[in-house]
Amino acid sequence: MPLSISEISTPIASHLEEFNDFFKGLIRSKAALLDIIVRYILKQRGKRVRPTLVFLSAAICGEVSRRTYIAAALVELLHTATLVHDDVVDEADKRRGVPSINAVWKNKVAVLVGDYLLSRGLLIAVENEEFDFLRITSTSVRRMSEGELLQIQKSRQKTLDEETYFKIISDKTASLISTCCEIGAVSTTDSSDKRIALRDYGELVGIAFQIQDDILDYTSRSSIVGKPIGNDIKEKKITLPLIYACENVDKSEARSIIKSIKSGNLSPKNVEEIIQFVERNHGVRRAQEKAHSIISEAKEKISSFPDSPAKTSLMNFADYVIERTK
Amino acid sequence: MPLSISEISTPIASHLEEFNDFFKGLIRSKAALLDIIVRYILKQRGKRVRPTLVFLSAAICGEVSRRTYIAAALVELLHTATLVHDDVVDEADKRRGVPSINAVWKNKVAVLVGDYLLSRGLLIAVENEEFDFLRITSTSVRRMSEGELLQIQKSRQKTLDEETYFKIISDKTASLISTCCEIGAVSTTDSSDKRIALRDYGELVGIAFQIQDDILDYTSRSSIVGKPIGNDIKEKKITLPLIYACENVDKSEARSIIKSIKSGNLSPKNVEEIIQFVERNHGVRRAQEKAHSIISEAKEKISSFPDSPAKTSLMNFADYVIERTK
Repeated sequence: MPLSISEISTPIASHLEEFNDFFKGLIRSKAALLDIIVRYILKQRGKRVRPTLVFLSAAICGEVSRRTYIAAALVELLHTATLVHDDVVDEADKRRGVPSINAVWKNKVAVLVGDYLLSRGLLIAVENEEFDFLRITSTSVRRMSEGELLQIQKSRQKTLDEETYFKIISDKTASLISTCCEIGAVSTTDSSDKRIALRDYGELVGIAFQIQDDILDYTSRSSIVGKPIGNDIKEKKITLPLIYACENVDKSEARSIIKSIKSGNLSPKNVEEIIQFVERNHGVRRAQEKAHSIISEAKEKISSFPDSPAKTSLMNFADYVIERTK
Repeated sequence: MPLSISEISTPIASHLEEFNDFFKGLIRSKAALLDIIVRYILKQRGKRVRPTLVFLSAAICGEVSRRTYIAAALVELLHTATLVHDDVVDEADKRRGVPSINAVWKNKVAVLVGDYLLSRGLLIAVENEEFDFLRITSTSVRRMSEGELLQIQKSRQKTLDEETYFKIISDKTASLISTCCEIGAVSTTDSSDKRIALRDYGELVGIAFQIQDDILDYTSRSSIVGKPIGNDIKEKKITLPLIYACENVDKSEARSIIKSIKSGNLSPKNVEEIIQFVERNHGVRRAQEKAHSIISEAKEKISSFPDSPAKTSLMNFADYVIERTK
């Protein structure tokens, strides 16, 4: 069992505690509807992975300061804005089992609230003249939207190659995690070596994070994940385990599997068969090996930092990413 | 007949021409789907009111420079992002008679493209270290989303007072127009007096712009506007002409009118009757008087600038706003 996020965050636990109040104060609004929604979002916040990464990356490079709090707030606002917009994007009606903003308040409000949160984050950075933070986070917003759009574009095609898969998950998922680490580093050090090390660590960890998500969709049971297994298949998504499995069989068999997924007319039995096909053709195992090798690379990026509780936690976080079962 | 936008833009026409290419170059993307959508957006651009205001506000304060182009690009990207997001917001399936992004590519893509355009704008400002621009535009994004949300919140209520109406249209519409004028001024002058004068001019002109829009919904015929008359009534929107008309009758009559609008079950005949009610009770006339007085105030804000073609154009734009019939 890997350490939990709460165990990993121990070295910066008091900051995280204080950050909670800091963040709440920031996003409060005088507009009644907005305030209700924002409170609702606050209630269902997840494991606070992103602020944790910001604080750990700051702590591995120097002394956590007010700048770190601003960095964490910016990333958390950005992440929350993205989640709210994602709810529109995915037409999801559940997120972590709670009805999404979208389902409760409809698309229009979701878009506006996302825009509001985005602008709040930008204003905080602007007011504090944190222009490095702005550059880093704007790049991240651009990459995330480009990645999502590339995924939509490719989803209409009959195939997906490994290179495009990595491009999509780098932009869609890894860019924000990379941003968390880079912005945390920037908040406590001027060293561009350290900053680049943390940025690269974050990018690699983020890629592995998404691969593990995609693996879990093939391996976990609904009682654990809280969502039915094989969700990606049902949503016609081609992910790494499937790409690798297809490489292991002849082209006509691969084509017919992809075709049946893209048809969208799959019975639960069909889904189960595809999961078995992927398992049988080492799709899951190869994806796991790939994730492991990426995580080794990520750890290597920060290996030259002097030992510290923050460094240990970042190493543990890297392991957590590929060992987690949900 | 007021001057057209193209006549008003004469003093900065060559800049506007050059800006077109500058802007096209900026928003091009390597992502195929994104590029298709962006080209599609470019094709159906409107009268380019916002860049025109940026260039005129720059020209009245000093010499148009590269900074002015960046300011105009930032505002135009922001405006386009807002339009794309509005399409989700309003569940509109037509914008200027062309199928909206939303209808053609669905909500998910609309949200992402809006986010992409927003981040492109921010990055351009960050790359050019235009932090004043960032502060001004982020405030604008916040005000626009807050204004829209306040409107949604109030739309559930049985009444709307004049003060709330002005708060909503200031945030929703006037903030961006004000931003155009302020950011244009900032691009060519350090004088905070001039900057504030242009900002206030823009805010007032923006408020009058929205009042005129709301008046036209009561007065214009579908052959002119391209949309059916009384649209706001059908969408249960309470605007200034109606607010003023209700002030002219006793409370019970006002309440019953509002109630019938909020019921949403109006026949074309009912809509026609409400339009006549508003006309009969001087709602349109009082709204026109209000818009006129706001425009006088707006002109006063820039009256002390030395005479110049740009100043004349800004004065003409103020007149255009309330004299236009579409």
